[in-house]
Amino acid sequence: MPEVTVVKVGGAVLEDSAALDAFLAAFRAVSGAKVLIHGGGRTATDMAHRLGVETHMVGGRRVTDSDMLDVVTMVYAGLVNKRVVAQLQALGVNALGLTGADGDAVRAHRRPVAEVDYGFVGDVDSANGELFATLLPDVVPVVAPLTHDGRGQLLNTNADTMAQAVATALATRYDVTLVYCFEKPGVLANAEDDGSVIPVLTPERYARLKADGSVSGGMLPKLDNAFAALQAGVKRVVITSARRLDGGTVITPR
Amino acid sequence: MPEVTVVKVGGAVLEDSAALDAFLAAFRAVSGAKVLIHGGGRTATDMAHRLGVETHMVGGRRVTDSDMLDVVTMVYAGLVNKRVVAQLQALGVNALGLTGADGDAVRAHRRPVAEVDYGFVGDVDSANGELFATLLPDVVPVVAPLTHDGRGQLLNTNADTMAQAVATALATRYDVTLVYCFEKPGVLANAEDDGSVIPVLTPERYARLKADGSVSGGMLPKLDNAFAALQAGVKRVVITSARRLDGGTVITPR
Repeated sequence: MPEVTVVKVGGAVLEDSAALDAFLAAFRAVSGAKVLIHGGGRTATDMAHRLGVETHMVGGRRVTDSDMLDVVTMVYAGLVNKRVVAQLQALGVNALGLTGADGDAVRAHRRPVAEVDYGFVGDVDSANGELFATLLPDVVPVVAPLTHDGRGQLLNTNADTMAQAVATALATRYDVTLVYCFEKPGVLANAEDDGSVIPVLTPERYARLKADGSVSGGMLPKLDNAFAALQAGVKRVVITSARRLDGGTVITPR
Repeated sequence: MPEVTVVKVGGAVLEDSAALDAFLAAFRAVSGAKVLIHGGGRTATDMAHRLGVETHMVGGRRVTDSDMLDVVTMVYAGLVNKRVVAQLQALGVNALGLTGADGDAVRAHRRPVAEVDYGFVGDVDSANGELFATLLPDVVPVVAPLTHDGRGQLLNTNADTMAQAVATALATRYDVTLVYCFEKPGVLANAEDDGSVIPVLTPERYARLKADGSVSGGMLPKLDNAFAALQAGVKRVVITSARRLDGGTVITPR
């Protein structure tokens, strides 16, 4: 099967022009077919503030009312996505920006109201592997963290989850490597020591690191997602620094 | 040759939800391969005002400084483009939003400074017929009025000109109909009478209407562009109401 690399980069990298330049150079160096999925976080919070739209976060997730949906649509699909696309084009990478609505790339449903009403937040149903396969390898899709419900409603959606959905949808056609960029050089055996990157992480080792508390907090959902992606057919998941996409921790099923 | 219809719709239609619904239904009814190019105008002016960015117009054109470029990128590529895409998807049209930067769809250069410095405004060099041909007919490109210079700079660009560039680029591969939507039902023999639509307009008749003053003002550049598109290989240009894409004035080379 042909190979594809699906790279997720977070909002923090996008907001620091030196970090973004370094990341885009690293992304350019990835050979073969590739997809970029980006977050957008803080720029949206700043823009919301300038527009007098209040930001409410519950458990790290943004509550998205109608005004906030407009803000994230402007910032993620407009400002952030198009800056990244134009910069990649300047580097000779034939980038093309998408939200989940474009070409029906990623479809979702509005998250059901339980204890919290997150508003216009989408839980992903499926990604459109056929669309990505049509574009690849000549075009490099650059995906903003918005989906749609197929009935005209845009939905604010977690970029990590979208990356996983895209990687999974491509797994029937490609040997998929899913790369999560991160502020650290990889999964660390000792959180205080950037030199302690674990080069290969198996489910067994992950279970031990969880049990002894070496891995905790924000890394847990990332790693749970990584192992879920492997279960769903992705060949390998890499957790690495946004400056070096060829290093970091490789997560494998065994 | 296969047929394609390239439709340009202005900002005013996009800002009125009833008019937009009527237009999108009419656009859905266009058979075969199609491309939509939209303007964005007034929403950007409102958003600029909310963000404290001053709007300067010279000769009907927006002067685009760096802050205004951010505003139009957010509004045209984000808010307007994604709303239209999501609504078309809900109508069963497989829309995919693009700016000129995406897939190098439309390249431009910054307008040289003469009497006026328009700032980050682009004059179109060329559209990428190959990209559009790859997407058509399964995907319906929806193009926002922004281009790039290939060196990382986004540029605010006139949507009529972009429509003409896309139509022209497609003319080597397709029998192209270029449709300009408009607040009137077509080119009128008597500006006061909406019933006086001229069904067919040739260069000879246009010359007469210009000479006797029946056609003037904003229609002149539109019609000059229409005849230029015919010169460049487009098969026919239609000027019609946004509610009825199958009526209006058909402009032909003879």
